[in-house]
Formats: sequence, C-alpha cells, structure tokens
Amino acid sequence: MTEPSTPTPQDRLMVSEMLDAARLWQRLAELARHGATPAGGVERLALSPAEVAARHAVLGWAAAAGLGLACDPAGNIFLRLEGRSASAAPVLTGSYLDSQPKGGRYSGSYGVLAGLEALCAIGRAGHAPERPIVAAIWTNGEGSRFCPGYTGSKAFAARRLAKGSLAVRDDTGASFGEALSAWQATAGGLAKIRLGFDCSAYVELHLEQGPELEDRNKQIGVVTGMQGMRRYQIDVEGEAAHAGGMPRARRRDALSAAVRIIGGLESVCSAPDVTHTVSQLAITPNAPSVVPGSATFSLDVRHADDTVLTHLGEAIRLICQSEKGPCRCTLTEVLTAPPITFDPLIGASTAAAAARLGLTTWPMLSLGGHDARSLAGHCPSGIIFIPCHKGISHSEHELISSQAATGGARVLTDVLWDFANA
Amino acid sequence: MTEPSTPTPQDRLMVSEMLDAARLWQRLAELARHGATPAGGVERLALSPAEVAARHAVLGWAAAAGLGLACDPAGNIFLRLEGRSASAAPVLTGSYLDSQPKGGRYSGSYGVLAGLEALCAIGRAGHAPERPIVAAIWTNGEGSRFCPGYTGSKAFAARRLAKGSLAVRDDTGASFGEALSAWQATAGGLAKIRLGFDCSAYVELHLEQGPELEDRNKQIGVVTGMQGMRRYQIDVEGEAAHAGGMPRARRRDALSAAVRIIGGLESVCSAPDVTHTVSQLAITPNAPSVVPGSATFSLDVRHADDTVLTHLGEAIRLICQSEKGPCRCTLTEVLTAPPITFDPLIGASTAAAAARLGLTTWPMLSLGGHDARSLAGHCPSGIIFIPCHKGISHSEHELISSQAATGGARVLTDVLWDFANA
Repeated sequence: MTEPSTPTPQDRLMVSEMLDAARLWQRLAELARHGATPAGGVERLALSPAEVAARHAVLGWAAAAGLGLACDPAGNIFLRLEGRSASAAPVLTGSYLDSQPKGGRYSGSYGVLAGLEALCAIGRAGHAPERPIVAAIWTNGEGSRFCPGYTGSKAFAARRLAKGSLAVRDDTGASFGEALSAWQATAGGLAKIRLGFDCSAYVELHLEQGPELEDRNKQIGVVTGMQGMRRYQIDVEGEAAHAGGMPRARRRDALSAAVRIIGGLESVCSAPDVTHTVSQLAITPNAPSVVPGSATFSLDVRHADDTVLTHLGEAIRLICQSEKGPCRCTLTEVLTAPPITFDPLIGASTAAAAARLGLTTWPMLSLGGHDARSLAGHCPSGIIFIPCHKGISHSEHELISSQAATGGARVLTDVLWDFANA
Repeated sequence: MTEPSTPTPQDRLMVSEMLDAARLWQRLAELARHGATPAGGVERLALSPAEVAARHAVLGWAAAAGLGLACDPAGNIFLRLEGRSASAAPVLTGSYLDSQPKGGRYSGSYGVLAGLEALCAIGRAGHAPERPIVAAIWTNGEGSRFCPGYTGSKAFAARRLAKGSLAVRDDTGASFGEALSAWQATAGGLAKIRLGFDCSAYVELHLEQGPELEDRNKQIGVVTGMQGMRRYQIDVEGEAAHAGGMPRARRRDALSAAVRIIGGLESVCSAPDVTHTVSQLAITPNAPSVVPGSATFSLDVRHADDTVLTHLGEAIRLICQSEKGPCRCTLTEVLTAPPITFDPLIGASTAAAAARLGLTTWPMLSLGGHDARSLAGHCPSGIIFIPCHKGISHSEHELISSQAATGGARVLTDVLWDFANA
C-alpha cells in the first residue's frame, strides 16, 4: 500500500470564497459614472475621454491591489498576478470598457471588474497559482466608435494591428490612430509590452445579452461556441425629386425601395434560429419635401451554421434585386465571422465550478460576438455567461442582479485558478 | 362719328421684346457658382455664406440697372422699378435664392433673375408703368435649413415674423435669428423698410418641378391653384437590444415597426392624385449590432381636396396603430397647408401673354408649395410655370432649357406690365 498523496493547497482551496462581492458591485456603480447618461446607461466610446478615465480608474484599483500593469501598442491593458512559474504561459481573462453610443453600464465593465476581483481573490488566498493570471482590458470591443470592433483582441492574437486599423475614422473624422495616441499620452506610467504573448487559456465573463438564461431560470451559461455572423451594407440609389411635383409612379424613391427590401428580408430571414437586424440607416438628402435620392443601410445576419449563412447571402442578394424597383441597389458583404466552437475543457471547468458553488448551468451558444472570437485561434478559449434582465443589452436599460454578478465572478475565479494550476 | 381713340403706349408695347434673354441665361450660370456642388447643383442653404453671396450678386446687378434696393426685418430683399404713380400699390413678383441641401441651380434663382430681367426690360422699354413693379427675394423659401419654409413671404404677408421664427434652429444649432443677423451685418448699404406693404397683385414664375408640361409638350403652365398638404412627424419608440442576443420575436425593434408603417402607407395613400412622401428618417442609436430603439420619420401628404386630406389623416393614424407591433407610436401633424385657388385674372393675363408670344399653355394645379401661398391671402396672386427636364427638381440634376427660361420670363414681363397698368 502506498501512502495516500498529500492534498495540495490547490485541491483544498475554493479561491472564490475570497471574492469581495460587495466591492465588485460597488465598483460597477463607480465605473458607470464615467460617461454616465441621464437614463442610467453609459456613453463611453472607445478611447474617448470618458473611456480613458474609466481605464485609469481600473488601473488605480489594480495598482492598489499590487497587480502588475502593462499596456501594448493596440491600447490593450494587462493586469497581472504573478504565478510561481514566472515563465509559464499565463491564463488570460478579459473584456472591454468602451460602450455603445447609448449603452449599458454592465457590458464589458462587468468582465473587466470581475477579472480584477478574481485576481485580488486569488492573491488574497495566500497561495500563488502555478501560472501567472492576467486580466486584459481590450481596446474598442464594441466597435461602435471605430468599426469593426475587437480591434485590441484581434491585434493581440495576430501580434499586429490589422492593416488599415489606424486609419479607421469615427463620425467626427478622428482616426483610431489619433485616439490611440491620445490614450498613450496618458499612459506614461505603464510598462510597455509587445503585441501578443502565449497564453495557456482565455476565459471571458459577460452578461448573456439575450433572455435564454433568465427564461430558463439558470444562473450560469456554459458557452460552447459562437454563432456566425455576416454583415452587409446595402446601398440604394434613386433620384431626388420634389415631394409635391413628381408623381409617385415616376419616382425613383430610394427610401421606398429600401423599405420594400427590408420588408422582404423579414420573409427571407424567417427560418428558425436566423437572426437578422437592420441597425443603421441613412437617407439623403433627408430634407422636407424632397423624395429620398439615396438610402444606405446595414444588415446583420446570424446563425450557428455557416452553410445557412452562405445560402442566406444568396437569398438576400435576390431580394435586393427583386424589390429595388426603379432604383439601383448594391449589396456589399463588409464583415464575415464564421461560427466557432470553444474549448470543451473550459466548459467542463465552468460547469464543475458552478456545481461546487451550487449554481445552475445551461449549455448554450453565444449569439453575440465577443473578444473570445479573436482569442479562439490563439489559445483554448471559452466564455461564461450570467443572466441579464429581460435579455436587454446594448441599451441604457441593461440590468444584471448583484447575485448574478457575484455568481459569475466566483465561477470565473475558480476557473482561472483551475487553469492556472493545470 | 367720333374720332378713334389714340392708342396708348401700353396698347402698342410688347415689353417682353426688350427682355435680354442671353443675359438671363448667363446670370443663371453665374449665380449657380454660389454654393456650386461637383454634380452641377447647388448647396446654398438659407442665409448661409453662399446664399448671402448670391444675394449680393443679384443686388449688384440690380444696382447697375438703376433699380431701387431695400430689405426688411425678415431678410427679404426688394428690387423696385418706379411707376408713374409712386404712391400706387406696386405689382409684385418674387422667388428665393436658398436651395435644398443638394438642390438644383434653377429653383428660386430662375424666378428671381427672371423678375430682375423683367424689370430691366420694362425699364428699357422707355415708358414707365403706372404702378411701381417690385421683385422680391424671399428669405428661406425652401425651408430646408430652417423648417418650415416661406419664412420671409409669410412674414411679409402677415406684416410680422411668425411667433418662434427667430428661435428655429438648423442642424448645427444655429438659430434663424442668428443667421438673419449675419445677413443683416452685410446689408448696411440697403434701405430698410417695414415688414409688408400693399400690393395690387403678386405673380411668381417657377419651373414646374413635375413632368406634366413636358409630358403634354406645353410651354407655359397657367397655374389655377395649389393642392393642399399635411406634414406629419411619426415617432416610434421601441427598445434597443443586442442584435445577436435578443431573439426577433422578443424585440421591440423601432425600425421594423417604422418599415411596416411606411409599407402600410403605400396602400392607405394609393388613391388617385394623392401624393405621399417619407423624406426624413432617423433611427437611434444607429450603431452596428444594436436593435434600433427609436425611429422618427416625416410624412408629407398632398391632394387638391382638403376633405380627402382630412380622411387620409385618420387612415394614417389607424395604420400607425395597426402596424406599430410592440412599439409605441405617436403621430403629430406638424404642418397644414390647405388647397388654394389663385386669382383668375392673373391666369387670364398669363394665357393672353403666352398666346401673343406664340407659346402653348396648359391650365394646372401647383403640386408643390410656393411663396405664392403666403401672398394669396394678401393680394390677388398667381403662378406661371415653365417645364423642367423629366420633372426632376429638388435635385442636383434639375434642368430647364434656355428656350423655356426665355419663354417664361417674357410671359412674366408682359403680365407684370399688364397689372402695372391696370
């Protein structure tokens, strides 16, 4: 008979017991002051003064906790808890601090602050993990100021900024490069590291941004993959004319054509599990008494199966042609994000941690995009979801409960600890 | 037997023979340089630097022609040819120099420059008319910078600026009052007159802005009246949400509701001779990946019969309610312009002048609004139309022929002469 092996500190320790849930909730409220809107949301566009202030708030808290601080040329920030093996590839978590123009106070902020609290909890537990654990703040996660988003995480995974990123301009004409320099001018005190480093795993914590967990009364979403997405720009060109003088039958009204096309998309995209959205639309000259001469709108289509998306693309092209009437219509695919499957070990660790904590779980797809998409090709990656009120997100009315916030942060803490000692 | 009466100079004179048609055409091109767009139109918003420059160009030509120059507190400009009876109520013509955001080079400008040339022609004829003849440049005719339009002509007819006019703001936040002051600062050399004066008649010359004259191959439109118009603002309020996460069935997508309503209007407004246009539309937050939370759009409905418009208003209200789905929808009538009938004597004079000049005529309604609507309650009023290419107006592609421009200006000249001696 051999002696039973002595339990290691890792076996005995449920590090999430150390989580300061009250501080997490309080800091969510404090962070929401940066860019606060009267309706209770935030307007904190990427690298805007409000977002830079939010970055410095988090940096201040991380510095007080004794974490290592660094930033990279994409504007990403890294908060680092050292491991016993300083040279081991760290475990990574991360989220973002930018928001939609009228966004919620939890998206992004929750993942960042929960990551910070997870690192603090693990530090407080008194046993250093084997691997370092790093919490990242990704630049331009939402992509609503500089489109497309995930600029920071994509640059991290590729170890270089995507071609043309620096030249992308916001609505006011300011470039991403200029905004990045404005942030960097405030980041003099931070260590500078190169873009990208090896990671042993990436785990992202986020609110669901849909109603499934709430509907099913589940506390933790074990995210197994992410549905695919195609984004199109549809340009309709007609002819401006006098709204009184030009008979309707003789018009080339670009908005009328756009409305027919958008109406037609309802049937084309009506298959189960297809989600489509027209979220941006502009017409010119957009003046009283002038028949619209042109209309441009976005179309976002999502499904878990890439083949379905490919077939839909063809159907969308046909509907544009059949409904354009006397106008010209061009369909341009501007973004393709194929469906992805996450690392099953992260899902298993998530489910196990939730079970230990007495939290119910549900396996599900992420219907929205996340920085984990960028990381999925870089290292084993996964996402943990918590419920959000009525599924509302990307809205000033976005809401999570403090219990849900605590539950998700505790699961994240334990999963990070798991992988940091694996 | 009595001696036959000696013909008066008025009887013998066809003053339109004196019209300098080449100069009219040349000045239309010169005026189009102010605010010229690359596509050949003009962007010359009311009281903008480009429109103020256009005003001064016309003032320079009028001064060189020896006409009297004056302006009023609404920014209206008056070019005056004296009559033999200085105290008689003048005959008035007029138009405007502002344009749509991407407008044509002829709307407004043509009526102003033809009025100037008519005064020059009558002056050149060597016989002063009995009454003074005045050509007005009305402020904010298009109403695309400061909505609603006809600000100057309405103030003239009412002898006061409409309540709240000065506070109306453009897209940049500048008020009409501020823009007016900017113009007035350049108008130091002009005589200042009070708002409004008695007129014996008002005759406006304009391109048709529709295809009827061209279709019927007629040269002069004898405008017998103006159809009525109602303008509505429709506000749809839904809820912003994540374009991936929120299932379509659970959304309160404001743009989807707006598209259903706009689609429904096609059938509601399908009766013969009803013209409806949605020409302004804005959604929020208008960001990628965010389900539209609100949508606001304009609806312009026109018909010659006010009763039809009233019934349509009720049908429009019903369609908003039936198609709004889970969103809220409010319908606000923001502008009402009833149908009007013009003075038959002006029509008769127009038809007679055209016949003398060998030009074909067609009696017709004005389907668009004009400053003549403001004047119709002030003095006997009327409009003369000339054809425009394919009916296109409120567009950079607006086009008239030089022959049509000459024909209309000659008819205007003779009609003004008629009424100035009546």
